[in-house]
Amino acid sequence: MDLKDYITTIPDFPTKGVMFRDITTLMQNGEAFSFAIKQIAEFAKYKGANVIVGPEARGFMFGCPVAAELKIGFIPVRKPGKLPRAAIAEEYDLEYGTNTLSIHADSLKKGDKVLVVDDLLATGGTALAAAHLCERLGAEVVGFAFVIDLKDLGGRKKLKEYDVFSLVEYEGE
Amino acid sequence: MDLKDYITTIPDFPTKGVMFRDITTLMQNGEAFSFAIKQIAEFAKYKGANVIVGPEARGFMFGCPVAAELKIGFIPVRKPGKLPRAAIAEEYDLEYGTNTLSIHADSLKKGDKVLVVDDLLATGGTALAAAHLCERLGAEVVGFAFVIDLKDLGGRKKLKEYDVFSLVEYEGE
Repeated sequence: MDLKDYITTIPDFPTKGVMFRDITTLMQNGEAFSFAIKQIAEFAKYKGANVIVGPEARGFMFGCPVAAELKIGFIPVRKPGKLPRAAIAEEYDLEYGTNTLSIHADSLKKGDKVLVVDDLLATGGTALAAAHLCERLGAEVVGFAFVIDLKDLGGRKKLKEYDVFSLVEYEGE
Repeated sequence: MDLKDYITTIPDFPTKGVMFRDITTLMQNGEAFSFAIKQIAEFAKYKGANVIVGPEARGFMFGCPVAAELKIGFIPVRKPGKLPRAAIAEEYDLEYGTNTLSIHADSLKKGDKVLVVDDLLATGGTALAAAHLCERLGAEVVGFAFVIDLKDLGGRKKLKEYDVFSLVEYEGE
């Protein structure tokens, strides 16, 4: 199954010049969606992950099914103010300005092996911030899994200390 | 398994006087999380659903695993501006002000049988708006599934035309 057949490209969304890779058409198709989940779950097993971490909101769409498939826990990484219990936060740079992500302070512990799951790897800033949050709680990040890797944006370079898995790659298109 | 054991109550979040029911502690536990997903998936099968619809963002956390478990499609309902393709929108009343939700216009068709999945049933406004969006696209809403029903807030009354399933109920506490 070629998952690219189920991903839609939207020119100039959300801003002019961006070729937006839309995974909602993949998720609309039950076979394609469950195939993607099973591939990521296999990688999680191979890496020995005992917990899945996913950033808001599209990370929930793939991370939660992987966790449920493996009967392991899922930990959300969210914008500040969205998590109800004590949390730690990490700020990181965007092309223009900064963004902040947070994680519940009691959600991970020393010895936990985390796979970070998100829909898309672009520059890698969000993924790296999520990994730092996990590490600050004492957990080990055993890898990253993405549905899509936008290779031109260099995310794998930013995550070079880690094992990175992706299902679909776009390069020079 | 009593899922209430895994739900945390946070007094005065996000505002004073609210007893917030936190499902992230349930999701942190792999057994509890996958148990919840399987229960909702059973209800979806019983109702003959061929597609799951879930509102942003906690609806993704439960709706996506249910869809993946059943190998059926998942359709997100999101705030305006978040969906990249042509969408229709529905405005509904909140206690103070209004909210708007949208769905991709090509995501459902006549004959589709939708189960709407969310973490929590409060007043039912979000759920009803999600159902209306599905119905405007010609689909049939065969039911709603929630992890938590806050019975004091009367959501089931607002959804009385529909079949409503929940895993955990809070009343007068």
